[in-house]
Formats: sequence, C-alpha cells, structure tokens
Amino acid sequence: MLREAVGTLPAPLDHMGGYHFGWWDADGSPTPQPLGKALRPALTVCTAIACGSTAHAALAAAAAVELVHNFTLLHDDVMDGDEVRRGRPAVWKVWGNADAILLGDALHALAARVLVAGLPGATATAALAALEMAIIEMCRGQHEDCRLGAGGRAGLDEYTRMVMGKTGALMGCACVLGALCAQADRTTVAAMETFGRELGMAFQFVDDLIGIWGDPAVTGKPASDLARHSMSLPVVSALGSGTAAAAELARMYRPSPATAAMDTARAAALVESAGGRRWTQRLAERRMRAAIAALADPAAAADLMALAHLVSHRDR
Amino acid sequence: MLREAVGTLPAPLDHMGGYHFGWWDADGSPTPQPLGKALRPALTVCTAIACGSTAHAALAAAAAVELVHNFTLLHDDVMDGDEVRRGRPAVWKVWGNADAILLGDALHALAARVLVAGLPGATATAALAALEMAIIEMCRGQHEDCRLGAGGRAGLDEYTRMVMGKTGALMGCACVLGALCAQADRTTVAAMETFGRELGMAFQFVDDLIGIWGDPAVTGKPASDLARHSMSLPVVSALGSGTAAAAELARMYRPSPATAAMDTARAAALVESAGGRRWTQRLAERRMRAAIAALADPAAAADLMALAHLVSHRDR
Repeated sequence: MLREAVGTLPAPLDHMGGYHFGWWDADGSPTPQPLGKALRPALTVCTAIACGSTAHAALAAAAAVELVHNFTLLHDDVMDGDEVRRGRPAVWKVWGNADAILLGDALHALAARVLVAGLPGATATAALAALEMAIIEMCRGQHEDCRLGAGGRAGLDEYTRMVMGKTGALMGCACVLGALCAQADRTTVAAMETFGRELGMAFQFVDDLIGIWGDPAVTGKPASDLARHSMSLPVVSALGSGTAAAAELARMYRPSPATAAMDTARAAALVESAGGRRWTQRLAERRMRAAIAALADPAAAADLMALAHLVSHRDR
Repeated sequence: MLREAVGTLPAPLDHMGGYHFGWWDADGSPTPQPLGKALRPALTVCTAIACGSTAHAALAAAAAVELVHNFTLLHDDVMDGDEVRRGRPAVWKVWGNADAILLGDALHALAARVLVAGLPGATATAALAALEMAIIEMCRGQHEDCRLGAGGRAGLDEYTRMVMGKTGALMGCACVLGALCAQADRTTVAAMETFGRELGMAFQFVDDLIGIWGDPAVTGKPASDLARHSMSLPVVSALGSGTAAAAELARMYRPSPATAAMDTARAAALVESAGGRRWTQRLAERRMRAAIAALADPAAAADLMALAHLVSHRDR
C-alpha cells in the first residue's frame, strides 16, 4: 500500500520517494536495502488486532503513519544536516534541500490522502485530526531539539518534553489510529495512546543508550552521539548529577571555536560514572512498565507485548 | 478563524505564525501591516455564494486554503532564499531555516485539521482529498520552478505546466472547496475548478508583467524579476521568439561566474521588442476568458466576476 501510494506522486517525487524508502538507488536500480524498522505501522496494525479487529482494517492507517514518519525524517535531515539515512546518503545530499523539503511536504499530503481514502467517514475524520495533531506536536519537539543541538542546556524535564514531541507523539498516534480502525471506545483509544506514548519514550531512551554504547557495526551509524555533542538522556542526566565526572563532561561539551575531536571513550566513561547510563536504563524500564500497565488485558495484546519486548531489547 | 487556528499552535510556533501573517512584529508588538491579498480564501467564499450557499458555510475551507498558501510561502522562501515577504524579513531570515520549515509543516497540519473540523463528514473527506492533491501538485510545480531558477531553459509548455502547479492548482482547489461547501453537484465542482485554475494562470501572468513593468513603490518588491534572472512568461516567450532581441536577451541571461548587475531597463526593452510583453498580456486575457467561460451563469457569480476583474486589473 505504501509503495502504491508513493507511486502516485508526480515525477520525479515518486522516484525520490522510492529512493528514500530504500526500494531503489538514486539511478533507479533495485536495492536489497532493508526498509527501516517499520515499528510505527506495526504498532498500528497490532493495536487494531489487540482491539479485536483485523490487520486489514488498519492497513491504510499504518501506511499513513509510516508516510508521516518518513516526511519528518526527510525534513529533520535537512534541518540537522544529517548526511546519512539508513546507511545511504540522505535525500538532501543527493538532490538538494529544496527537493528534500518538497518530498517531505508531498509525503505529508499523501499520508492525509491515504488515511481518508482508506477509512470509513467518521473514523477517517477522527483519525486525521489525531494524525495532524501529532504532526504539530512533532514540530514543537523538533524545534526544541534544534535548540538543544544549538548549545542549549536541558534539564530532564525539557529533555523529556522534547522526546514526547519528537517520538512519543507519533507512536501514541500510531496506536490511536489502530484503535480507531477497530472502532474501539473512547477509553480504549486513550489507553492505547498512553501505551504508544510510553513505549515511544522507552524506545528513545534505548536509542540514546545505543547512541553511546551501541556497536557501530550493528547500528550502521558511523559515530557516537557524544562525538556530535548530541544531547541525549544519559548525557543530560549525567550533567545534572552534581558529580566531579559531570563537571569534566560539561567542560568537554562546552562549545569551543576550534571544534576539537571529542575523546568519546573518555566521555562515555564519564557519563557512566556520573550515573547517566544506569539512570537512563531505569527510566526506559519505568516507561516500558507504564506502557504495559496501560493495556487493560495484556494477554489479549500479545503482539503489542512482543513489540514492546523488541523495543526494549534491541541493539540497533 | 485563521487567527484562532494559528493561536492553537504550541509556542513558539504560534508567535512565528502571527509574525508571518503580519499580526505582530518579531518582538510581539502589534503591526498595522496588511495581511496580503487573501485572494484564495475570497475565491472559496465567493464560489460558495455563487453556488447558492453562504459565506459562513465556507469559512473553515477558506481558512484551510489560506493556511496551505502560507505553508507553501514559508517553504518556498527557504528554498529560493527569498529574504523579504510582504515587505518584512521572511521567517527564515528571523528564526532560521529549521523554524521556517517547521512552521510550514505545522500550518499544513493545521489546514487539514481546520478543514475536517469545520465541514460535515462526507464533504470534509472530499475537500481534504482535493486540498492534499493540490499540495502534491504544488510540490511538483515548485520542483520545476527550482529547476528553471537553477539555469534550466524553459519552453512555453514547461513554463505553463509549472505555473499550473504553483498557482493554478491551489486557486482551482480554493474554488472546488467553495463548491463542495455549497454541496454543489459534480459538474458544478468541475466547472468551478476550471474557473479557479484559469484565473490562477491569468493571475500569475499578470504577476509576471508586474514583475518587470510594475512600479516598485506600488508593488513593495525591491527589484525587477529581470535583475534576479527569473524565468517568467514575458522572458520565456521573448527568448523563444527567434528575433535579434531574443539573442541579445539570451546573452544577458547566460550564467556568468562574475554575476554582473543586469541592465534591467535594457533587458525590459528587449523583452518588449521581442514581443514578450504583448504575448503575455494576450495569454493572460485568454486565460481570463476561459475562466469566465467556465461559469455556467456569470450573472449569478457577481462576486467571482469582481474577483476576476481585480486579478486582471491590479498593479501589485
């Protein structure tokens, strides 16, 4: 359904879209590239099943969620100057900023089209309102992330709020859409939103751990988050620990005119000794428990439980 | 309704949005700034009235169209590097590219929300599909415009196709939405789309004339399109005329390493003597006649006729 939808875009947006999703190379030759984790559409489908419906009923919503996720990836890569996406040059690196912005805009529009075309009337409008609201929240989160990236100092609250916007909002929405497709009642929809949001937070916190202690050979990401001076939960909590290690880490994170290469091994050791790693693991587990607690009947939600397990025990 | 909608955005997007629309300055002090032409929402409202409904029934759709128009302005200014919008620094000049992209994304999302919240179910989904389709067409048009701006040579067909995407699509959609709000039948909706698209083409061609021969004191635009080496209909048609003037103009439009200041008075004279001005006036009139011919009963569409007159006889 995703491929069919992207295929309706006018040239050359269809071609760039297929490249971004990993279906072919920039020159059009097919690739054996994996398509990313597809976690969000899986959430939508599994939520619909957990709510007593079928995967089929949720396919359009799942495609819409994945389109939105990819629209924001395209725009984020432009804003952040990230040159690599899923192991290949980002769309803006290949075709320039303008086309990456336009392709993102087109995928956003396509998501809305796919959603209202694929759902019955009242469900369609409720689902669309939820999806667009999530997008607005993601814009807020990305704005905050850009400010942190520009040398802003963040406390735990600011960081948590940013992650709720950037990651929690769309994963919550993925579950809302699944529940709406299953014609679930209001209470169930709200519970599923909590599940998705909490899982999203856990997902990001695990991502933050992988960003420092993950194996580049497994993650496919070239450099540690620390090398890029990224703010992530281990760093934020380490910096706020009031320890000697925090003070040394803060000096390493201070912006300097000559951007000296960071000693990432040393920085990682400081984050760990300041308690940043343990603290992040604990918060990820707490969010995961909150997610599972939101499920009225975990036994009926076996697929969702499996997804949750996957999120918290992944290494890339 | 527009102001209320923008006010629902999370800070600081609400503030940047109000700045972009001209409601206040970057520091928040109110401005006496005009809000742009608001031609598209006027089209939506007047179409609804021409189809036997009321302005009230079309207000949400009109706001959605204006939100989409402004989302594309924000992104276009980033892509084109245009520093001035409505006589003031563009949002990206004040807050940077990232925030301008995010505000555009948020306005797009807001447009969809406003549309489905303000219309009854079946109308909402049809209107949303039309609006998102127009956005995809605008992305195609802006992509083509960027290619022309990067030194691509355009024939009349390419140029016309680009303008249909950039300007015709949303003006056609503005009329479609007005007709849908009035519960018009399929034939009427299609006729109104033709009216809007043809009017949009005329609008852009008149814009192209103003871009060369307009009075900067009236238009508020600092420099001639010619100074920026812009491709516009007078230039495209002059370059294709096969005259001696065309050859001289082509030399002036050739990209040179040292971007010498263009003698815009000489270039304007060449465009005129190559027939570019007369040709553009003729095509604008032809599009305007096609727009009016699409109206089944021009007498019942007095407001639309007035808008059409305004479009073809404006000086800014």
